Amino acid sequence: MSAIFETTILGSSAATPTSVRHTSAQLLKYHNLYFLIDCAEGCQMQLRRLKKPLMKISHIFISHLHGDHYLGLPGLLFSLHLLGREKELHVYSPPGLEEIIDLQYKIAGLTPSFDIRFHNLLEGETLIYQDDNLTVETIEMDHRLPTYGFLFREKPKERTIRKESLSIYRIPLARRSGIKKGDDLITEDGTRIPNEEITSPPPPPRSYAFCSDTAYTENFIEQIRHADLLYHEATFMHDKADIARQKLHSTTIEAATLAKKAGAGTLMIGHYSARYKELEDFRREAARVFPNTILAREGETVEVRLKKQAGKPGG
Amino acid sequence: MSAIFETTILGSSAATPTSVRHTSAQLLKYHNLYFLIDCAEGCQMQLRRLKKPLMKISHIFISHLHGDHYLGLPGLLFSLHLLGREKELHVYSPPGLEEIIDLQYKIAGLTPSFDIRFHNLLEGETLIYQDDNLTVETIEMDHRLPTYGFLFREKPKERTIRKESLSIYRIPLARRSGIKKGDDLITEDGTRIPNEEITSPPPPPRSYAFCSDTAYTENFIEQIRHADLLYHEATFMHDKADIARQKLHSTTIEAATLAKKAGAGTLMIGHYSARYKELEDFRREAARVFPNTILAREGETVEVRLKKQAGKPGG
Repeated sequence: MSAIFETTILGSSAATPTSVRHTSAQLLKYHNLYFLIDCAEGCQMQLRRLKKPLMKISHIFISHLHGDHYLGLPGLLFSLHLLGREKELHVYSPPGLEEIIDLQYKIAGLTPSFDIRFHNLLEGETLIYQDDNLTVETIEMDHRLPTYGFLFREKPKERTIRKESLSIYRIPLARRSGIKKGDDLITEDGTRIPNEEITSPPPPPRSYAFCSDTAYTENFIEQIRHADLLYHEATFMHDKADIARQKLHSTTIEAATLAKKAGAGTLMIGHYSARYKELEDFRREAARVFPNTILAREGETVEVRLKKQAGKPGG
Repeated sequence: MSAIFETTILGSSAATPTSVRHTSAQLLKYHNLYFLIDCAEGCQMQLRRLKKPLMKISHIFISHLHGDHYLGLPGLLFSLHLLGREKELHVYSPPGLEEIIDLQYKIAGLTPSFDIRFHNLLEGETLIYQDDNLTVETIEMDHRLPTYGFLFREKPKERTIRKESLSIYRIPLARRSGIKKGDDLITEDGTRIPNEEITSPPPPPRSYAFCSDTAYTENFIEQIRHADLLYHEATFMHDKADIARQKLHSTTIEAATLAKKAGAGTLMIGHYSARYKELEDFRREAARVFPNTILAREGETVEVRLKKQAGKPGG
């Protein structure tokens, strides 16, 4: 059974793949909506192996234009073309990707069977997508190239009118929409019934913060505060903190420190350097700082569950 | 044990990968020389899975600029860079590839750690590589874009002077090189001893003809005549001959017909359309026309063995 809001790890390797790990890609699913987050080499094969619905992907978010985050895109686009896709596809990335893809189509003498709408991610711009249920914001990373994380957040849902209130107050249909949004009820005799007395609060919105390649920074900590699921790269174990800093990447301890300071629900680490075989060491090291740490493991799906916290229902 | 002259199948799928087949790539090994023939998406992971020496690859031959034949190249180049390669790498392809790779490096703000020497393949040009033992020629395919096959052929080896001739005629060191090349021996008294009486012929040169995407054509049949191993694409079973013709691809029967007419030793078919699951049907159908047909199967290595024929030693 798949969850309503979940991400599937297609690639978890940094920079270069290993014989068992692919470079970055995740498939985010929200209800029946499918988004790709990064699309590195081999992404389309991973989607096929995991029997994911390629054709349902509507939006692709590319964090930055290092090869290990986008080199699977041309092949995926070409396969969608061969599958006869007609529906437009939205691709978000820092500027440059459209030029790369266009050149490849030009040289191959091909025109895709569907409209590829490129959206350039720019500094300062935050809200890049929204629909009735979800918003997507960019998060500015600290990396060599312009690099973005993505914050996927549910929109607040409406309050629910209690069954007993409906019958006691005979709330007219025309008023219900306002009450679900928080209006108080004014009865026929002019009495004001506070909204909280007749409605139940909705479950809090869930959020997934995907923090791509970055040196340790607290610049975006307010933006991702209380993220229910935080993915943060941890390219190195902490004994390689110097190398991490030099390459503008993070370590286990740094990812965990950020998760702790941001009050995240669950931390998922990934983007492991190819030099490491054993990943459990990563989890153990990060968990010393932030116990609720899990590993991004290829083929596995992680649900975006509400953070457990006092005074916050669900979870 | 690896053979002296062999090719390893890294990808055998046409156009789009499946959950179990990658798009085109082969690793050709000749003694300690490693060549890549095509380099589709996932090629570098296949090389790693098969524990092949990535860094020893010195020449890459790309048949044409459809994505399913070259999209693994940017990732491979990037990995070689990260591995600290310093030795130059030669890349042969129809014009356009250098522009594609250059643009990706420019946008990523990277300079490769080694020299990538691009060689444009052009119509009419045939001999594109040679060393002491081997030549590589382009073969002109019939496809939508400029597309080349590659003929890897051993240079004729020298004749061997028979041990007994050395002692009977006391052949001076200075003369031996000429005799190995076919000169007759002139003795001190002026007698001419025919070369064949004092030498043994070398084993015939072996050849591997890689025929990439192409409609059925006999245009290059003389060039590949008697190839010991002929790889010829067979994208479709023969009941799809119409589709094959329309897409400028070949069928099992067409590949087998060409192998038969060209007098090949062994035919290896590959580049199977993703619509097919079962490959043994391909082999069986082709073998009706050319019995010595084998399948390109990923992960398998095929030796380039001398064709068995009357009057031709070895094999």
